[in-house]
Amino acid sequence: MTRIDDLPIRDELRGKSPYGAPQLDVPVRLNTNENPYPLPEPLVERITERVREAARGLNRYPDRDAVELRTQLAAYLTRTTGHRVSLAGVWAANGSNEIIQQLLQTFGGPGRTAIGFEPSYSMHALISRGTGTGWICGARRADFTIDVEQAKAEIARHRPDVVFVCSPNNPTGTAVDADTVLALYEAAQAARADTAGALVVVDEAYGEFSHRPSLLPLIEGRPNLVVSRTMSKAFGAAGLRLGYLAADPAVVDAVQLVRLPYHLSAVTQATALAALEHTDTLLGYVEQLKAERDRLVTELRAIGCEVTESDANFVQFGRFEDAHAAWQGLLDRGVLVRDNGVPGWLRVTAGTPAENDAFLDAVRELKKENRT
Amino acid sequence: MTRIDDLPIRDELRGKSPYGAPQLDVPVRLNTNENPYPLPEPLVERITERVREAARGLNRYPDRDAVELRTQLAAYLTRTTGHRVSLAGVWAANGSNEIIQQLLQTFGGPGRTAIGFEPSYSMHALISRGTGTGWICGARRADFTIDVEQAKAEIARHRPDVVFVCSPNNPTGTAVDADTVLALYEAAQAARADTAGALVVVDEAYGEFSHRPSLLPLIEGRPNLVVSRTMSKAFGAAGLRLGYLAADPAVVDAVQLVRLPYHLSAVTQATALAALEHTDTLLGYVEQLKAERDRLVTELRAIGCEVTESDANFVQFGRFEDAHAAWQGLLDRGVLVRDNGVPGWLRVTAGTPAENDAFLDAVRELKKENRT
Repeated sequence: MTRIDDLPIRDELRGKSPYGAPQLDVPVRLNTNENPYPLPEPLVERITERVREAARGLNRYPDRDAVELRTQLAAYLTRTTGHRVSLAGVWAANGSNEIIQQLLQTFGGPGRTAIGFEPSYSMHALISRGTGTGWICGARRADFTIDVEQAKAEIARHRPDVVFVCSPNNPTGTAVDADTVLALYEAAQAARADTAGALVVVDEAYGEFSHRPSLLPLIEGRPNLVVSRTMSKAFGAAGLRLGYLAADPAVVDAVQLVRLPYHLSAVTQATALAALEHTDTLLGYVEQLKAERDRLVTELRAIGCEVTESDANFVQFGRFEDAHAAWQGLLDRGVLVRDNGVPGWLRVTAGTPAENDAFLDAVRELKKENRT
Repeated sequence: MTRIDDLPIRDELRGKSPYGAPQLDVPVRLNTNENPYPLPEPLVERITERVREAARGLNRYPDRDAVELRTQLAAYLTRTTGHRVSLAGVWAANGSNEIIQQLLQTFGGPGRTAIGFEPSYSMHALISRGTGTGWICGARRADFTIDVEQAKAEIARHRPDVVFVCSPNNPTGTAVDADTVLALYEAAQAARADTAGALVVVDEAYGEFSHRPSLLPLIEGRPNLVVSRTMSKAFGAAGLRLGYLAADPAVVDAVQLVRLPYHLSAVTQATALAALEHTDTLLGYVEQLKAERDRLVTELRAIGCEVTESDANFVQFGRFEDAHAAWQGLLDRGVLVRDNGVPGWLRVTAGTPAENDAFLDAVRELKKENRT
């Protein structure tokens, strides 16, 4: 039998494993920050209507520029952030991962570097590796906030081409304020003042769950600032794989130099458009999830857990002497959470009230067991 | 206004334009090798049924490994090529472009090279550029067949990490026989005998339209040989964006090191599965298109055109002193064909009988006009 390492793969891939959380069949799945609420039935019907129409023209390539979809995404962003976004300033792809990949192919790549402040969304580092971009691991404080002075110093020292700022940050839930982003943006431009500057990517995958307003208005007058978003979380559509970005129209033009032509299928565009028609209903679920997220924080603390302040649809909790053993202990009780490899900490997604109750019960049992 | 070149994009992207044929609204569109037959209505209904089901679980991430879809693709390949293919030997992605991109990220990339024999599918070179893989432009004979001895010499000289063989070749329609592929495979392994060899990618995007059997059985005992396919052409589903590959299971394992997690949406998987249920109907359209393709060859020759032998759903015809002027002349008559930049030649997709008649009439008029 041929093994991977018998093949002429790139040296840096040897011995590596594919990224991905275990897809296990357990009663309570709170491990991948999915929205626990299935799409409402009227939306399911609207999706089938739109897909039926798209299927009738499926023999033709899709709209390569996804104009209708980007127009509706721009309208959504304008309505919810108060910042006027136009079609020309929005781009969409198969999940925010593909958005990040396209940005790195355009602004990163061989001979270039990207920095992120870890722990953070691990795909930033992995997609950097996949695009040949050198990865610089910046630090956070013990409370998982970004130390602006230290971050500025790291940027000045390494002169990265791309800076990732995840807000709210995955897996910690930590939001980043506008002043911090502005300070890092200025530092990144100053560090590369001999060139056209550096790209700063604000990853707002969980933006709709935040107590704070979106950082999107910061793109005004800052052509090297990008805000990425996704329909996986707030729109309850992880299965759809629809990510998007808002930025100066020049950035949207630039990623089209590397995007695969017709990357976004007609059924994806149709489904996303249907979901956008039901924005208000879906944002109602977001409000419920924010309340559940806040309840998780309160109850976990009452149980005696440490909890990181969260602006997302998940909560980082701990601290455990052996986080992986705690993860297994919860799994044994039918509750799947995420071990992101942050020593002492685990991450739980805010589910339905019943799922969260089951999770809290499991944590209580685990605590009790470890005490005896 | 910010322009692309004001941004910190990669130097090799400066001054470039996005790839893509013009999407023009004309009566007869025969420029992108689409299947002219809309999906039959029972299949449209089956797609909506399957998508309705998928939409009800859209809040969850899709099956990351697309097991059901890959199983059905394997069954399709087994049935139509006579070579037994298993789930473990099939991988799927958003169009064969993404398949090629994943292969180049795994087996090409910075410091590595890929070769193709041009004119051929231009995305091989473009995705190489996009993944930092050096591109080597191999040659073809004047009749667009591959000169095996010359190709072997080019492989020995350049020692590429990846070899692309497109059969039937786009845009020329030229099929490649098994002996040629085997000779190039052996040459590629010999040239890199000091390493784990070189990957040979046989791009069979138009395989179902060929007079010859698939080259897929060649993967047996050759772990560095990959056959890529698509549902865009034979399955009449260009709008679906579903490409796939068959290879040794180790290759399938290897591309998972670079694939974006959950790259294939639940609606894409559902739609592709529905289409696979209707394989026999769709392959019936393929037979009609092969007959129309052969008619185009015959009639174009009767008009006085030169025509390249075609095993695909398109025909390369010429020769024109000014191919672009001829392209414009046909467009002025409401017929959009493709100017692939091959001097003297244009490419026309086999459409419906009525579309092909309109195209042939336009060519006749053009010929007459140029004679007077």
